[in-house]
Amino acid sequence: MKYFTTPIVFALSFAGSLVLGDDNTKSAALEIKAVLDAQETAWNKRDLDGFLVGYWNSPKVVFQSGGERSDGFAAMRDRYYKNYKADGKEMGTLAFSQIEIEVLGADSAFVRGAWALTKADGSNPKGLFTLIMRKLPEGWRIVHDHTSVAAPKKP
Amino acid sequence: MKYFTTPIVFALSFAGSLVLGDDNTKSAALEIKAVLDAQETAWNKRDLDGFLVGYWNSPKVVFQSGGERSDGFAAMRDRYYKNYKADGKEMGTLAFSQIEIEVLGADSAFVRGAWALTKADGSNPKGLFTLIMRKLPEGWRIVHDHTSVAAPKKP
Repeated sequence: MKYFTTPIVFALSFAGSLVLGDDNTKSAALEIKAVLDAQETAWNKRDLDGFLVGYWNSPKVVFQSGGERSDGFAAMRDRYYKNYKADGKEMGTLAFSQIEIEVLGADSAFVRGAWALTKADGSNPKGLFTLIMRKLPEGWRIVHDHTSVAAPKKP
Repeated sequence: MKYFTTPIVFALSFAGSLVLGDDNTKSAALEIKAVLDAQETAWNKRDLDGFLVGYWNSPKVVFQSGGERSDGFAAMRDRYYKNYKADGKEMGTLAFSQIEIEVLGADSAFVRGAWALTKADGSNPKGLFTLIMRKLPEGWRIVHDHTSVAAPKKP
Protein backbone atom coordinates (compact mmCIF):
# COMPACT_ATOMS: atom_id res chain seq x y z
CA MET A 1 0.00 0.00 0.00
CA LYS A 2 3.06 2.17 -0.35
CA TYR A 3 1.52 4.33 -3.04
CA PHE A 4 -1.57 5.24 -1.05
CA THR A 5 0.00 7.39 1.60
CA THR A 6 -1.45 10.34 -0.31
CA PRO A 7 -4.88 10.15 -1.95
CA ILE A 8 -4.82 9.19 -5.59
CA VAL A 9 -7.69 9.64 -7.97
CA PHE A 10 -8.02 6.81 -10.46
CA ALA A 11 -10.35 8.58 -12.78
CA LEU A 12 -11.48 6.91 -15.94
CA SER A 13 -12.84 9.13 -18.66
CA PHE A 14 -16.06 10.62 -17.34
CA ALA A 15 -17.20 11.10 -20.91
CA GLY A 16 -17.15 7.33 -21.13
CA SER A 17 -15.56 6.96 -24.54
CA LEU A 18 -12.18 5.51 -23.62
CA VAL A 19 -11.58 1.81 -23.74
CA LEU A 20 -8.99 1.56 -20.97
CA GLY A 21 -9.88 -0.94 -18.30
CA ASP A 22 -9.69 -0.10 -14.63
CA ASP A 23 -6.57 -2.22 -14.22
CA ASN A 24 -4.76 -0.30 -16.95
CA THR A 25 -5.82 3.00 -15.46
CA LYS A 26 -4.71 1.98 -12.00
CA SER A 27 -1.42 0.66 -13.32
CA ALA A 28 -0.77 3.92 -15.19
CA ALA A 29 -1.57 5.96 -12.08
CA LEU A 30 0.84 3.88 -10.00
CA GLU A 31 3.59 4.29 -12.59
CA ILE A 32 3.04 8.04 -12.57
CA LYS A 33 3.02 8.15 -8.78
CA ALA A 34 6.36 6.31 -8.81
CA VAL A 35 7.85 9.00 -11.09
CA LEU A 36 6.75 11.72 -8.65
CA ASP A 37 8.04 9.75 -5.66
CA ALA A 38 11.40 9.35 -7.41
CA GLN A 39 11.51 13.11 -8.02
CA GLU A 40 10.89 13.85 -4.37
CA THR A 41 13.53 11.33 -3.28
CA ALA A 42 16.13 12.69 -5.71
CA TRP A 43 15.47 16.29 -4.64
CA ASN A 44 15.91 15.41 -1.00
CA LYS A 45 19.28 13.82 -1.81
CA ARG A 46 20.19 17.13 -3.50
CA ASP A 47 20.32 15.22 -6.80
CA LEU A 48 18.85 17.84 -9.11
CA ASP A 49 19.60 15.91 -12.29
CA GLY A 50 17.88 12.88 -10.77
CA PHE A 51 14.86 15.08 -10.06
CA LEU A 52 14.87 16.28 -13.66
CA VAL A 53 14.64 12.70 -15.00
CA GLY A 54 10.88 13.03 -14.42
CA TYR A 55 10.70 15.54 -17.26
CA TRP A 56 10.58 14.87 -20.99
CA ASN A 57 14.15 15.43 -22.19
CA SER A 58 13.11 17.39 -25.24
CA PRO A 59 13.25 20.91 -26.67
CA LYS A 60 9.43 20.72 -26.54
CA VAL A 61 8.98 20.33 -22.80
CA VAL A 62 7.34 23.48 -21.38
CA PHE A 63 7.59 24.94 -17.88
CA GLN A 64 5.26 27.77 -16.85
CA SER A 65 5.58 29.63 -13.58
CA GLY A 66 4.62 33.11 -12.39
CA GLY A 67 3.91 34.42 -15.84
CA GLU A 68 7.20 33.13 -17.27
CA ARG A 69 7.37 30.35 -19.83
CA SER A 70 10.49 28.34 -20.51
CA ASP A 71 10.78 26.07 -23.54
CA GLY A 72 12.97 23.00 -23.68
CA PHE A 73 14.77 20.79 -21.22
CA ALA A 74 18.03 22.77 -21.30
CA ALA A 75 16.35 26.05 -20.32
CA MET A 76 14.36 24.33 -17.58
CA ARG A 77 17.50 22.68 -16.21
CA ASP A 78 19.29 26.05 -16.22
CA ARG A 79 16.38 27.59 -14.35
CA TYR A 80 16.49 24.92 -11.65
CA TYR A 81 20.27 25.17 -11.30
CA LYS A 82 20.10 28.95 -11.04
CA ASN A 83 17.35 28.87 -8.41
CA TYR A 84 18.57 25.95 -6.32
CA LYS A 85 22.27 25.26 -6.91
CA ALA A 86 23.80 28.71 -7.39
CA ASP A 87 25.87 30.41 -4.68
CA GLY A 88 23.72 31.25 -1.71
CA LYS A 89 20.85 29.02 -2.86
CA GLU A 90 19.67 25.88 -1.15
CA MET A 91 17.37 23.12 -2.35
CA GLY A 92 15.69 22.56 0.99
CA THR A 93 13.45 19.59 1.66
CA LEU A 94 10.68 18.96 -0.85
CA ALA A 95 7.32 17.45 -0.03
CA PHE A 96 4.51 16.83 -2.50
CA SER A 97 0.97 16.51 -1.13
CA GLN A 98 -2.66 16.40 -2.26
CA ILE A 99 -1.59 14.48 -5.36
CA GLU A 100 -4.44 13.68 -7.76
CA ILE A 101 -3.64 11.67 -10.86
CA GLU A 102 -6.24 11.56 -13.61
CA VAL A 103 -5.48 9.13 -16.41
CA LEU A 104 -6.91 10.53 -19.66
CA GLY A 105 -6.00 7.70 -22.02
CA ALA A 106 -3.47 4.95 -22.67
CA ASP A 107 -0.61 7.41 -22.92
CA SER A 108 -1.76 10.64 -21.30
CA ALA A 109 -2.66 11.87 -17.85
CA PHE A 110 -2.70 14.98 -15.78
CA VAL A 111 -1.66 15.48 -12.20
CA ARG A 112 -2.46 18.26 -9.78
CA GLY A 113 -1.08 18.72 -6.32
CA ALA A 114 0.80 20.87 -3.88
CA TRP A 115 4.51 21.30 -3.20
CA ALA A 116 6.32 22.72 -0.21
CA LEU A 117 9.96 23.37 0.51
CA THR A 118 11.39 23.59 4.01
CA LYS A 119 14.61 25.56 4.04
CA ALA A 120 17.37 25.90 6.60
CA ASP A 121 16.75 29.65 6.83
CA GLY A 122 13.25 28.92 8.15
CA SER A 123 11.45 29.92 4.97
CA ASN A 124 8.74 27.62 3.65
CA PRO A 125 7.89 28.43 0.03
CA LYS A 126 4.94 26.44 -1.29
CA GLY A 127 2.37 26.34 -3.99
CA LEU A 128 0.43 24.25 -6.47
CA PHE A 129 1.28 22.47 -9.69
CA THR A 130 -0.44 21.02 -12.72
CA LEU A 131 1.42 18.45 -14.81
CA ILE A 132 0.63 16.95 -18.18
CA MET A 133 2.22 13.55 -18.47
CA ARG A 134 2.72 11.31 -21.50
CA LYS A 135 3.78 7.72 -21.68
CA LEU A 136 6.93 7.75 -23.79
CA PRO A 137 9.26 4.88 -24.71
CA GLU A 138 11.35 5.81 -21.64
CA GLY A 139 8.29 5.79 -19.36
CA TRP A 140 5.81 8.37 -18.08
CA ARG A 141 7.32 11.84 -18.28
CA ILE A 142 6.16 15.39 -17.54
CA VAL A 143 5.73 17.16 -20.88
CA HIS A 144 4.21 20.35 -19.42
CA ASP A 145 4.48 21.80 -15.91
CA HIS A 146 2.56 24.80 -14.61
CA THR A 147 3.68 25.74 -11.12
CA SER A 148 2.54 28.65 -9.00
CA VAL A 149 3.84 29.95 -5.73
CA ALA A 150 1.58 30.99 -2.89
CA ALA A 151 2.00 34.55 -1.68
CA PRO A 152 3.70 34.40 1.73
CA LYS A 153 1.05 34.70 4.44
CA LYS A 154 1.41 37.49 6.92
CA PRO A 155 1.50 36.07 10.45
CA MET B 1 -9.11 30.71 -41.67
CA LYS B 2 -10.84 32.47 -38.82
CA TYR B 3 -9.40 30.14 -36.18
CA PHE B 4 -5.81 30.62 -37.25
CA THR B 5 -5.31 34.21 -36.14
CA THR B 6 -3.30 32.72 -33.25
CA PRO B 7 -1.03 29.72 -33.75
CA ILE B 8 -2.66 26.40 -32.92
CA VAL B 9 -0.80 23.18 -32.36
CA PHE B 10 -2.65 20.16 -33.72
CA ALA B 11 -0.64 17.59 -31.88
CA LEU B 12 -1.52 13.99 -32.22
CA SER B 13 -0.18 11.64 -29.59
CA PHE B 14 3.58 11.56 -29.98
CA ALA B 15 3.59 8.16 -28.30
CA GLY B 16 1.67 7.01 -31.35
CA SER B 17 -0.88 4.81 -29.62
CA LEU B 18 -4.05 6.79 -30.20
CA VAL B 19 -6.34 6.00 -33.07
CA LEU B 20 -7.64 9.48 -33.75
CA GLY B 21 -7.22 10.58 -37.32
CA ASP B 22 -5.82 13.96 -38.20
CA ASP B 23 -9.26 15.22 -39.18
CA ASN B 24 -10.71 14.31 -35.80
CA THR B 25 -7.82 15.97 -34.02
CA LYS B 26 -8.14 19.12 -36.08
CA SER B 27 -11.88 19.20 -35.58
CA ALA B 28 -11.46 18.82 -31.80
CA ALA B 29 -8.87 21.61 -31.73
CA LEU B 30 -11.22 23.91 -33.65
CA GLU B 31 -14.10 23.15 -31.30
CA ILE B 32 -11.87 23.92 -28.32
CA LYS B 33 -10.64 27.14 -29.92
CA ALA B 34 -14.27 28.16 -30.43
CA VAL B 35 -14.95 27.68 -26.70
CA LEU B 36 -12.01 29.96 -25.84
CA ASP B 37 -13.09 32.53 -28.43
CA ALA B 38 -16.59 32.52 -26.93
CA GLN B 39 -15.11 33.10 -23.46
CA GLU B 40 -13.12 36.08 -24.67
CA THR B 41 -16.16 37.55 -26.45
CA ALA B 42 -18.42 37.08 -23.42
CA TRP B 43 -15.85 38.67 -21.08
CA ASN B 44 -15.51 41.69 -23.31
CA LYS B 45 -19.30 42.16 -23.24
CA ARG B 46 -19.03 42.07 -19.44
CA ASP B 47 -21.03 38.82 -19.52
CA LEU B 48 -19.29 36.92 -16.73
CA ASP B 49 -21.82 34.07 -16.71
CA GLY B 50 -21.34 33.73 -20.47
CA PHE B 51 -17.59 33.50 -19.88
CA LEU B 52 -18.14 30.80 -17.26
CA VAL B 53 -20.04 28.60 -19.74
CA GLY B 54 -16.61 27.42 -20.90
CA TYR B 55 -16.13 25.62 -17.56
CA TRP B 56 -17.52 22.25 -16.50
CA ASN B 57 -20.58 23.07 -14.40
CA SER B 58 -19.75 20.54 -11.72
CA PRO B 59 -18.66 20.37 -8.09
CA LYS B 60 -15.55 18.63 -9.48
CA VAL B 61 -14.20 21.48 -11.61
CA VAL B 62 -10.93 22.76 -10.11
CA PHE B 63 -9.36 26.22 -10.36
CA GLN B 64 -5.78 26.75 -9.15
CA SER B 65 -4.16 30.17 -8.96
CA GLY B 66 -1.36 31.66 -6.86
CA GLY B 67 -1.24 28.78 -4.44
CA GLU B 68 -5.01 28.77 -3.87
CA ARG B 69 -7.25 25.94 -5.03
CA SER B 70 -10.98 26.30 -5.44
CA ASP B 71 -13.21 23.26 -5.90
CA GLY B 72 -16.50 23.34 -7.73
CA PHE B 73 -18.27 25.64 -10.14
CA ALA B 74 -20.08 27.63 -7.43
CA ALA B 75 -16.84 28.56 -5.63
CA MET B 76 -15.16 29.46 -8.91
CA ARG B 77 -18.10 31.64 -9.95
CA ASP B 78 -18.01 33.39 -6.54
CA ARG B 79 -14.29 34.02 -6.98
CA TYR B 80 -14.80 35.60 -10.40
CA TYR B 81 -17.72 37.74 -9.18
CA LYS B 82 -15.72 38.91 -6.16
CA ASN B 83 -12.67 39.80 -8.24
CA TYR B 84 -14.40 41.35 -11.26
CA LYS B 85 -17.99 42.39 -10.43
CA ALA B 86 -17.78 43.64 -6.84
CA ASP B 87 -17.85 47.34 -5.96
CA GLY B 88 -14.77 49.08 -7.27
CA LYS B 89 -13.79 46.14 -9.50
CA GLU B 90 -13.74 46.17 -13.27
CA MET B 91 -13.50 43.36 -15.78
CA GLY B 92 -11.35 45.21 -18.25
CA THR B 93 -10.67 43.91 -21.74
CA LEU B 94 -9.47 40.33 -22.01
CA ALA B 95 -7.14 39.02 -24.68
CA PHE B 96 -5.86 35.48 -24.97
CA SER B 97 -2.66 34.88 -26.94
CA GLN B 98 -0.05 32.20 -27.66
CA ILE B 99 -2.81 29.57 -27.55
CA GLU B 100 -1.56 26.00 -28.04
CA ILE B 101 -4.11 23.21 -28.10
CA GLU B 102 -2.87 19.66 -27.78
CA VAL B 103 -5.50 17.00 -28.34
CA LEU B 104 -4.66 13.99 -26.16
CA GLY B 105 -7.49 11.66 -27.19
CA ALA B 106 -11.06 11.55 -28.42
CA ASP B 107 -12.36 13.36 -25.36
CA SER B 108 -9.38 15.06 -23.74
CA ALA B 109 -7.00 17.87 -24.53
CA PHE B 110 -4.85 20.43 -22.84
CA VAL B 111 -4.38 24.06 -23.69
CA ARG B 112 -1.65 26.47 -22.69
CA GLY B 113 -1.52 30.16 -23.40
CA ALA B 114 -1.32 33.68 -22.10
CA TRP B 115 -3.98 36.11 -20.90
CA ALA B 116 -3.89 39.85 -20.49
CA LEU B 117 -6.37 42.35 -19.14
CA THR B 118 -6.38 46.01 -20.08
CA LYS B 119 -8.11 48.10 -17.43
CA ALA B 120 -9.44 51.63 -17.42
CA ASP B 121 -7.09 52.55 -14.56
CA GLY B 122 -4.13 51.83 -16.84
CA SER B 123 -3.16 48.57 -15.14
CA ASN B 124 -2.41 45.57 -17.33
CA PRO B 125 -2.45 42.34 -15.30
CA LYS B 126 -1.34 39.34 -17.29
CA GLY B 127 -0.09 35.81 -16.98
CA LEU B 128 -0.23 32.26 -18.23
CA PHE B 129 -2.77 29.47 -18.03
CA THR B 130 -2.95 25.71 -18.44
CA LEU B 131 -6.35 24.13 -19.08
CA ILE B 132 -7.42 20.50 -19.08
CA MET B 133 -10.44 20.08 -21.33
CA ARG B 134 -12.82 17.17 -21.68
CA LYS B 135 -15.47 16.54 -24.31
CA LEU B 136 -18.69 16.24 -22.37
CA PRO B 137 -22.25 15.77 -23.65
CA GLU B 138 -22.61 19.60 -23.60
CA GLY B 139 -19.38 20.07 -25.59
CA TRP B 140 -15.71 20.70 -24.74
CA ARG B 141 -15.40 22.18 -21.27
CA ILE B 142 -12.54 23.22 -18.97
CA VAL B 143 -12.39 20.70 -16.14
CA HIS B 144 -9.19 22.08 -14.57
CA ASP B 145 -7.64 25.55 -14.83
CA HIS B 146 -4.25 26.57 -13.49
CA THR B 147 -3.66 30.27 -13.90
CA SER B 148 -0.71 32.31 -12.76
CA VAL B 149 -0.16 36.03 -12.71
CA ALA B 150 3.07 37.64 -13.80
CA ALA B 151 4.77 39.82 -11.22
CA PRO B 152 4.34 43.45 -12.31
CA LYS B 153 7.51 44.60 -14.07
CA LYS B 154 9.24 47.63 -12.71
CA PRO B 155 9.64 50.22 -15.44
